[in-house]
Amino acid sequence: MKSPKITARAHTNIALIKYWGKKNQELIIPMNNSLSLTLDHFYTDTTVQFDSTLTEDIFTLDGKTYHDEKVSHFMDIVRDLANISTFAKIDSTNHVPTMAGLASSASAYAALALAASQAAGLNLDRKDLSRLARRGSGSASRSIYGGFVEWQAGTNDLDSYAVPFEEDVDWDLQMIAIVLDPNEKKISSRAGMQTVVATSPYYPAWVESTTADLTKIKTAIQARDFTTVGEIAESNAMKMHALNMSATPHFSYIEPDSIKVMDAVAELRAQGIPCYYTMDAGPNVKIICQKQDTQKISDYLTNLFAPEKVLVSAAGPGAKIIARCEA
Amino acid sequence: MKSPKITARAHTNIALIKYWGKKNQELIIPMNNSLSLTLDHFYTDTTVQFDSTLTEDIFTLDGKTYHDEKVSHFMDIVRDLANISTFAKIDSTNHVPTMAGLASSASAYAALALAASQAAGLNLDRKDLSRLARRGSGSASRSIYGGFVEWQAGTNDLDSYAVPFEEDVDWDLQMIAIVLDPNEKKISSRAGMQTVVATSPYYPAWVESTTADLTKIKTAIQARDFTTVGEIAESNAMKMHALNMSATPHFSYIEPDSIKVMDAVAELRAQGIPCYYTMDAGPNVKIICQKQDTQKISDYLTNLFAPEKVLVSAAGPGAKIIARCEA
Repeated sequence: MKSPKITARAHTNIALIKYWGKKNQELIIPMNNSLSLTLDHFYTDTTVQFDSTLTEDIFTLDGKTYHDEKVSHFMDIVRDLANISTFAKIDSTNHVPTMAGLASSASAYAALALAASQAAGLNLDRKDLSRLARRGSGSASRSIYGGFVEWQAGTNDLDSYAVPFEEDVDWDLQMIAIVLDPNEKKISSRAGMQTVVATSPYYPAWVESTTADLTKIKTAIQARDFTTVGEIAESNAMKMHALNMSATPHFSYIEPDSIKVMDAVAELRAQGIPCYYTMDAGPNVKIICQKQDTQKISDYLTNLFAPEKVLVSAAGPGAKIIARCEA
Repeated sequence: MKSPKITARAHTNIALIKYWGKKNQELIIPMNNSLSLTLDHFYTDTTVQFDSTLTEDIFTLDGKTYHDEKVSHFMDIVRDLANISTFAKIDSTNHVPTMAGLASSASAYAALALAASQAAGLNLDRKDLSRLARRGSGSASRSIYGGFVEWQAGTNDLDSYAVPFEEDVDWDLQMIAIVLDPNEKKISSRAGMQTVVATSPYYPAWVESTTADLTKIKTAIQARDFTTVGEIAESNAMKMHALNMSATPHFSYIEPDSIKVMDAVAELRAQGIPCYYTMDAGPNVKIICQKQDTQKISDYLTNLFAPEKVLVSAAGPGAKIIARCEA
């Protein structure tokens, strides 16, 4: 007995107001609301088919098979919801330029949530899809939607989900990702934020200050005030990375080349080109800019880094089914 | 009419618990107590002679004459104390390897406080010397003493001064300074800490957490517990640099090569060699270690940076008069 074979596509998102810390580890309930932009250029396609002849889930990523506890745990949540016990074949492809280091778990779990729930016979609305994706990876809750998306922290499994803030973005905002070699010893975002919540003396002030940042950036997005959006996003990212440096043990995702990119952005700004940066749980730097300036910024960066390390993306759409084959 | 010509020597100090923020800008009263180690290897020699034929102060540093408002302002404070109105010739030499970027204002104002007050006929005790040096540069208050020194924040001009915590250090603690090229656009420590106090949401937590760090490091110093001393110093420094990243506008003294040094220290520690780092308002990184490990650490660092960039120092003495010529 095989289920329909469903392929879903979901795009990555980059948070302008960061998610960094949970109030519930198991359910992935965040400490504060966050806000992101879904990107068109980076996405994951995932195909799921339940098959009663399987004795375990088979998970393939970019053609290689993995035993992934997190994926199996997520599939158990889907099986519980659908009240089934069948294992599945899960085939996932990251459509991100090779080695970009941007194959985040956001697009992965959003695509898996959609494909797996549909293959299991569930027809979840987007709110419940967002709740489900959240169980795989917090930021995946936002990749259900396109454009600007807010993840409302909530307090429990039912009320913690993303909502669209502005799904069809008629604003030529772009992101330029500068892809840098990851440090082997990097701490995972899950472990990093847990250390921060448990030990940083700055954490309560972060939550308060981020809540204020969120209100301000929403107003600035609605006003199409690029400077304010950029300043708040950059400042919010630096406050997040400051948390890591204040934790015990302290840690940092900022590598020498990350600083070179941040210095380049400051220099471009000094030359009158409006652009701002953000960073997440890795060395890559993402530059927020307007389409009219993208070429100049990307030319400047390709003088410092190889062209294949400089990737431009615009706002992208929400998760969707792209193929359905009945068994 | 000329005063006696007095030459004083004062050594730099490196804070293990940082001073970063004032509650009074004019009097330089800090927000929190700090604790430093005075270093033998880096010092300033300053000669002062008051001369009634002068129509302004003449300030020479390393053979070059400068018009320095801060020095003149400091000399006015000395003149007020001594109730004189004569200008002085001030001749200062930094005994720091060329371009080390370690010619801090700490040794400069400690030497100037001692030489100028003596030349002016004042015979200040060390408490009052520390108070006077503080008016030139906060950290100079600590360079009056050798070894481990605590600057007690106090609340006003009378009760804000340094006291020796352990002046004769019978512990083979050393510091290895890695001297890196300064970024031209660096923000001064005075401006940096002012921005932080005015804008960082993390500042109140910094003061509270640093007060706790101070208590713990004093106990660890007394117990000769190197690991705890190093861990607290490194953590305190990172919390200070985190403040900068959380300010508006955010800024940072951490440059790409600073991260390379910090990574090298982490790597040495992973190899079982106990060492920790600290940083101040510039890109240089200072490594805290024990004499038995200095050679190994310095060998490792000279593989990454030129040997002349790697400077070793032990604990040093307090400020003293080294020459007195009657006019």
